[in-house]
Amino acid sequence: MIYSNVFEDPNKFSFDIQSLGKCSVDSPVRGRQFIEDDEEISFPSQVKNINILQKKAEKFPAFQKAGPRKKIFHDPAWSHAAIITCGGLCPGLNNVIKGLVNVLYYDYNVKSIFGVRYGYQGLVPKYGYSPLHLNPEVVDSIHAVGGTILGSSRGNQGEVEMVDTLDRMNINLLFCIGGDGTLRGASDIVTEITRRKRAISVIGIPKTIDNDLSFIEKTFGYETAVHSSFEIITSAHNEAIGAYNGIGIVKLMGRDSGFIAASASLSNSAVDFCLVPEVDFTLDGENGLFRALERKLDKFHHAVIVVAEGAGQNLFKGLETRKDASGNILKNDIGVFLKDEISSYFKRIGKESSVKYFDPSYIIRSVAAISSDSIFCYLLAENAVHAGMAGKTNMVIGHWNNYFTHVPISLATHERRKIDLDGALWKGVLSSTRQNDYFSV
Amino acid sequence: MIYSNVFEDPNKFSFDIQSLGKCSVDSPVRGRQFIEDDEEISFPSQVKNINILQKKAEKFPAFQKAGPRKKIFHDPAWSHAAIITCGGLCPGLNNVIKGLVNVLYYDYNVKSIFGVRYGYQGLVPKYGYSPLHLNPEVVDSIHAVGGTILGSSRGNQGEVEMVDTLDRMNINLLFCIGGDGTLRGASDIVTEITRRKRAISVIGIPKTIDNDLSFIEKTFGYETAVHSSFEIITSAHNEAIGAYNGIGIVKLMGRDSGFIAASASLSNSAVDFCLVPEVDFTLDGENGLFRALERKLDKFHHAVIVVAEGAGQNLFKGLETRKDASGNILKNDIGVFLKDEISSYFKRIGKESSVKYFDPSYIIRSVAAISSDSIFCYLLAENAVHAGMAGKTNMVIGHWNNYFTHVPISLATHERRKIDLDGALWKGVLSSTRQNDYFSV
Amino acid sequence: MIYSNVFEDPNKFSFDIQSLGKCSVDSPVRGRQFIEDDEEISFPSQVKNINILQKKAEKFPAFQKAGPRKKIFHDPAWSHAAIITCGGLCPGLNNVIKGLVNVLYYDYNVKSIFGVRYGYQGLVPKYGYSPLHLNPEVVDSIHAVGGTILGSSRGNQGEVEMVDTLDRMNINLLFCIGGDGTLRGASDIVTEITRRKRAISVIGIPKTIDNDLSFIEKTFGYETAVHSSFEIITSAHNEAIGAYNGIGIVKLMGRDSGFIAASASLSNSAVDFCLVPEVDFTLDGENGLFRALERKLDKFHHAVIVVAEGAGQNLFKGLETRKDASGNILKNDIGVFLKDEISSYFKRIGKESSVKYFDPSYIIRSVAAISSDSIFCYLLAENAVHAGMAGKTNMVIGHWNNYFTHVPISLATHERRKIDLDGALWKGVLSSTRQNDYFSV
Amino acid sequence: MIYSNVFEDPNKFSFDIQSLGKCSVDSPVRGRQFIEDDEEISFPSQVKNINILQKKAEKFPAFQKAGPRKKIFHDPAWSHAAIITCGGLCPGLNNVIKGLVNVLYYDYNVKSIFGVRYGYQGLVPKYGYSPLHLNPEVVDSIHAVGGTILGSSRGNQGEVEMVDTLDRMNINLLFCIGGDGTLRGASDIVTEITRRKRAISVIGIPKTIDNDLSFIEKTFGYETAVHSSFEIITSAHNEAIGAYNGIGIVKLMGRDSGFIAASASLSNSAVDFCLVPEVDFTLDGENGLFRALERKLDKFHHAVIVVAEGAGQNLFKGLETRKDASGNILKNDIGVFLKDEISSYFKRIGKESSVKYFDPSYIIRSVAAISSDSIFCYLLAENAVHAGMAGKTNMVIGHWNNYFTHVPISLATHERRKIDLDGALWKGVLSSTRQNDYFSV
Repeated sequence: MIYSNVFEDPNKFSFDIQSLGKCSVDSPVRGRQFIEDDEEISFPSQVKNINILQKKAEKFPAFQKAGPRKKIFHDPAWSHAAIITCGGLCPGLNNVIKGLVNVLYYDYNVKSIFGVRYGYQGLVPKYGYSPLHLNPEVVDSIHAVGGTILGSSRGNQGEVEMVDTLDRMNINLLFCIGGDGTLRGASDIVTEITRRKRAISVIGIPKTIDNDLSFIEKTFGYETAVHSSFEIITSAHNEAIGAYNGIGIVKLMGRDSGFIAASASLSNSAVDFCLVPEVDFTLDGENGLFRALERKLDKFHHAVIVVAEGAGQNLFKGLETRKDASGNILKNDIGVFLKDEISSYFKRIGKESSVKYFDPSYIIRSVAAISSDSIFCYLLAENAVHAGMAGKTNMVIGHWNNYFTHVPISLATHERRKIDLDGALWKGVLSSTRQNDYFSV
Repeated sequence: MIYSNVFEDPNKFSFDIQSLGKCSVDSPVRGRQFIEDDEEISFPSQVKNINILQKKAEKFPAFQKAGPRKKIFHDPAWSHAAIITCGGLCPGLNNVIKGLVNVLYYDYNVKSIFGVRYGYQGLVPKYGYSPLHLNPEVVDSIHAVGGTILGSSRGNQGEVEMVDTLDRMNINLLFCIGGDGTLRGASDIVTEITRRKRAISVIGIPKTIDNDLSFIEKTFGYETAVHSSFEIITSAHNEAIGAYNGIGIVKLMGRDSGFIAASASLSNSAVDFCLVPEVDFTLDGENGLFRALERKLDKFHHAVIVVAEGAGQNLFKGLETRKDASGNILKNDIGVFLKDEISSYFKRIGKESSVKYFDPSYIIRSVAAISSDSIFCYLLAENAVHAGMAGKTNMVIGHWNNYFTHVPISLATHERRKIDLDGALWKGVLSSTRQNDYFSV
Repeated sequence: MIYSNVFEDPNKFSFDIQSLGKCSVDSPVRGRQFIEDDEEISFPSQVKNINILQKKAEKFPAFQKAGPRKKIFHDPAWSHAAIITCGGLCPGLNNVIKGLVNVLYYDYNVKSIFGVRYGYQGLVPKYGYSPLHLNPEVVDSIHAVGGTILGSSRGNQGEVEMVDTLDRMNINLLFCIGGDGTLRGASDIVTEITRRKRAISVIGIPKTIDNDLSFIEKTFGYETAVHSSFEIITSAHNEAIGAYNGIGIVKLMGRDSGFIAASASLSNSAVDFCLVPEVDFTLDGENGLFRALERKLDKFHHAVIVVAEGAGQNLFKGLETRKDASGNILKNDIGVFLKDEISSYFKRIGKESSVKYFDPSYIIRSVAAISSDSIFCYLLAENAVHAGMAGKTNMVIGHWNNYFTHVPISLATHERRKIDLDGALWKGVLSSTRQNDYFSV
Repeated sequence: MIYSNVFEDPNKFSFDIQSLGKCSVDSPVRGRQFIEDDEEISFPSQVKNINILQKKAEKFPAFQKAGPRKKIFHDPAWSHAAIITCGGLCPGLNNVIKGLVNVLYYDYNVKSIFGVRYGYQGLVPKYGYSPLHLNPEVVDSIHAVGGTILGSSRGNQGEVEMVDTLDRMNINLLFCIGGDGTLRGASDIVTEITRRKRAISVIGIPKTIDNDLSFIEKTFGYETAVHSSFEIITSAHNEAIGAYNGIGIVKLMGRDSGFIAASASLSNSAVDFCLVPEVDFTLDGENGLFRALERKLDKFHHAVIVVAEGAGQNLFKGLETRKDASGNILKNDIGVFLKDEISSYFKRIGKESSVKYFDPSYIIRSVAAISSDSIFCYLLAENAVHAGMAGKTNMVIGHWNNYFTHVPISLATHERRKIDLDGALWKGVLSSTRQNDYFSV
């Protein structure tokens, strides 16, 4: 992965509301070590020899460090915040909402907090969705519940109409929790805000259960998704064992990147084959999946396949592409496809087999966050509030080398992060599943 | 429900190996109160006024009480037992296997116990499945795992060939864990055994996750299935709340009887509509599901539907019937059908809606049993061993009025038990969901 | 168990508000089969040969069947209900509260429902606890949470003062959820009400996690407690295995009856010794626990002991008795005692051992109810409302032979139910633990 | 934290078996990118401005990067490995064992793998514990079970005797899974090995549920511990709510560092006070815990306190110190102490209160690892095998900036890692609990 070109003009990622005034308000945050804007987190830790690279770099590329600023831009007494959740469910949404509300309310004394209903639709009058009034009491126990109390929707709305609403409601802090499409929509809102010269901060909290954002090591909900996949895989394993040549197929989230599938496979050693978008495979022939599976069954009489939803798209070549309301390219359903094709294959060669198919997507997306995600959500939310109050905009809160960072939206949505096929995760999957022993005997 | 006619000739339900000798062996079971064959559990407790009825009955119909007998038929020293699991997975299969093995081994000193692989196929040589040798060590920790360590298969096999195998292996105790089809297969085996005058006891342990056997109040796995459904319904609820006019549809097990759907709905009050095979419904019109759902959404903007797989089959009138390998009539998929039809309806009337569909069948069937089922499985297994050692045959272990009973296979498979629509369970569902308020406004 | 003498004068258990008027109000409950007061559930199903007994009985002793009555006593339009929870936490309390509120509100249109705070203290002005106003919205999601939203307290309060409060608040329906002491307190309240000739129904919902009420087969929370004990026992097993001669001791609830300990032991076969109040044991000597444990360790090098809190009280002979605020006799702590004594024993005889002690009482009592308990709680609550509206009083809702029943408080609190040492549960425990093999080698 | 002085002589941390020969064996590991010994992971990422510091550093201090080496020291064909688990249970022990066995067996073809029983005692003949023979089949399903299949013990044994055993059994790879004391014991073994000039690699896998090792960001089991604490805290919250002025006290692991207590408090916002070893507190006076708690209760009438076992040790000044078998200083039991003192305080001032105490230590330590820990354990184990086969010794596998590293034992055990009181975790705890509002009103 080469990131160098995105840094050609670092100024294009500036994200302070600079032209509208200085940060002149004393932060009401107590007992904290304040962060300076020039504190940086260097990013290229993945490159092979960090010392050598650093010596080469004239100006060391880095992220601004997140955290409370001593002087803030928005006066808490005059602030009105809005929170919005967009796209599909992801464990931790309610934790982020709760964190935002509590930090705004208690740390910054911002008491006017609106919960926009049903994603960007809630900012468009024609839908007629009244916002919720949020405060610590309203959000007190929502962390224990999956989903989002605000509701969500897919797809963007016209930025002019949405900024009209922000204007009308005097919102000066907008927190957008969502994925690629949502964040691009947030950028469009910033453009319109900038055109109108409004002092409105727009802060994104990146939400992708697939954990596939660039320059952000971990996104919330991902660990919970892996954890929830564990028992589904165990179920598939039990079903596979329960029939002669039983085959359990579990389709997991992962449109472009197989992080969930790979991590789930590494955490539950019942998995025999892990198929991810990063690695193409064929079905037929000596090196194809059919023969690999057959070899496994001949030896053990049961097998479990975990397949990311975006895997094997090369097998659908020639079919037309479709998109969902958020503009995501709709993947052909590899799970159902594999189920049908594998059944056919074994029927064709006259070997008994029994395929059970698991598609737990909604079940996983809607559970409550596990503890590590809860903590991560809280800290994401906290840093989002700090950034917003300090007058940052057009950025998301990222996480890099154990620090929370400010990442320009354009950078975060620049490209999808992929599994490093030479890295520990994928090598661990290969070592744990031993799948290559069966693909290439 | 009137059961009277099935008792016209009670002798047709006799199930002792009578012609082959007496129970002349002293039971090795220690420290137990032995049960006499004439101890009975009366069955018609559901009728309105039990006292009046009992006075009317000349001969009071009843089940033989299960439990250890003082004198047993099979000599433990010469006994060889076989255990077989058939049909789809059900929580508790491994618990039953473990219970059978431990009671045979420890209480009766039967040390030769075979685990037949992959259902009735394991008794047919052409499949070539060698049986497992079972003992307490092998089964020590299987209770914590879902599925069946023996494997299973659907459908019956030729009884002549299967009894040949029993003969060849000197099996005198066969424990069949399975549903309707399996039990009918067991009856065919008994017929062949009787023809050959072999002293082989065939004892069934009824397995139906749907809890729909006649004369048997509760079957194992059912409570676990209800328990596992709880969190799936919560997920559906979270998904429903997460979208404007969000609709979560959860299809649960229940081919002919809606016990799981009803109990799951009563245990998780997130459910708005519970649809079961016992209650027909229509889609269109003022009293149809579409309008009922619309009324609910107009008021709350989200709804959860739980539908048993056998519900709404009247909606498929005119389509041809299909059967699976076990001879069960394949139901048309009401879940997918509802999902498509409901989406179409709201598109048609121009109302936004978002349908999320959950089909957790395999996930639920393959989990480990919860504690109450574990206990139930152990006691079922224990009583099955007592019955087998005492020379009973052609029967299953039932449960009635808090007692374990001996139920002739022909009686247990006589008809499917249904939800009593005037009983506490269904009335509780109606009271909890308040669905009739929306069907008939 | 011989119950005959308590039925000598069945009239002493009458529990209708008879002297104050007839049930003259038409029930607003729709779509239900109404129950007549003379429908009965016979109780002695545990006796050996039910048919013979029934022929002998002139008047068959029985319970009144619970359920909605066609004519009710209290006019819903004028009704004010109060709900109270007393004593220690028990899984399902919130489910019962929710059920009561929903059935009162929706089925009977009783909209004035008070939640009395902190048990009987909430009926005494000096504590100054204002009641909560309850309605379906307030209780909507409490079923997913353990504990009681009303709070609780131990011990009774003066009945005169409490009835003064009921009078002042115009309460005509009081639902008391609690154990022995609470129910006796409820009886005292009824006495005071009767003295004042007030038309106030007092209905108890029996709460004993120990499942030890007479004439009531199952109490709510019990199955959840058994289920929650499962993983604690697994932890104890892991700790026991994790050390040479490792001993895990788990103390479970059960002051006078060992139902939880026995069921938990039967459901988790990791248990080697199950000690209950119903079976005395000694520590020293060839037949004592020390030697039994030593034999087990010599063979397997680890052991798990489950002990009910009321077990082994004979070992404390000579010590003075203490009582808690509810008047329950405080048991000497058998768990800590065993832990210390067993450690000492092995030190004394010079054998290495490592004792780990688990006392999960509060952890178990405060969890949310599992599905089977949720359903049971709902049905208990529903029947309690039916009874209260029909003008019953001084009774609790029981469960017998799969029916809900009306049980006079005096009968329910008559004596503690015990494990039948000849029954399936205890015999199953002995068979599963094989503990007697080690006690008497 | 200033680490500079420990790097004064980097050579004292060299940990290759240098004097005994070169790494001359070709690695049998297939399909991996091999790591060179001079690849480094820089460590001081926590310092304020990383760029500035790096420019100052002449020689950049760093860890050797873990991973497979192209040339290895030990010839797999002649290798005998031994695995040992020491000290208290920790979630993930079985995962590490399984990972070690699978990577040794499949990736390196080392088929002779011994599981040493009961910690270091298993290397001392007088205890007479025969080792287990480990292979992939034996460890196949142990990842789903808590504890350690090898058993464990506290305390070290004589290194001469232990190396005698290694010699006798021809062990050339010893993997020690344990904490501070265990690792120091491992160092002693290395000293004896070096004295005898044996080519035995000793690799530590650091086990501290407290997550308090220096130079290692995360240790296995920690995330599971935090996750398991969540529901215990919820129980404590339910108990606190269930009584007037109810106080739930939960003691969690954390002898010298409060990471578990802090993370658990941040993940479950039911916590009102989080007490850790890093922050001293007093009980009496206006700024003491008693008054803080009283203020909380006056406002909400319930409170939850989470206290790390090593917190508040300043309150025990003057008492003598005790040590356990591993040499750890035994902390005075702050949990029981707080429970008693708080009860007394409220009795003293005449305010009602009800304290419930939770001490779930063993319950948490003995659960199975959650998914994120499973993955972490596998990767730790994999890298431990790579290190061992490459002839490293006297080191542990660490984790730093998302990389696995080689850390000299002396460095890892150099000092305990503490919560950074200016860092995100502790600030998050303060923000979430708002406890300082009550301490200093």
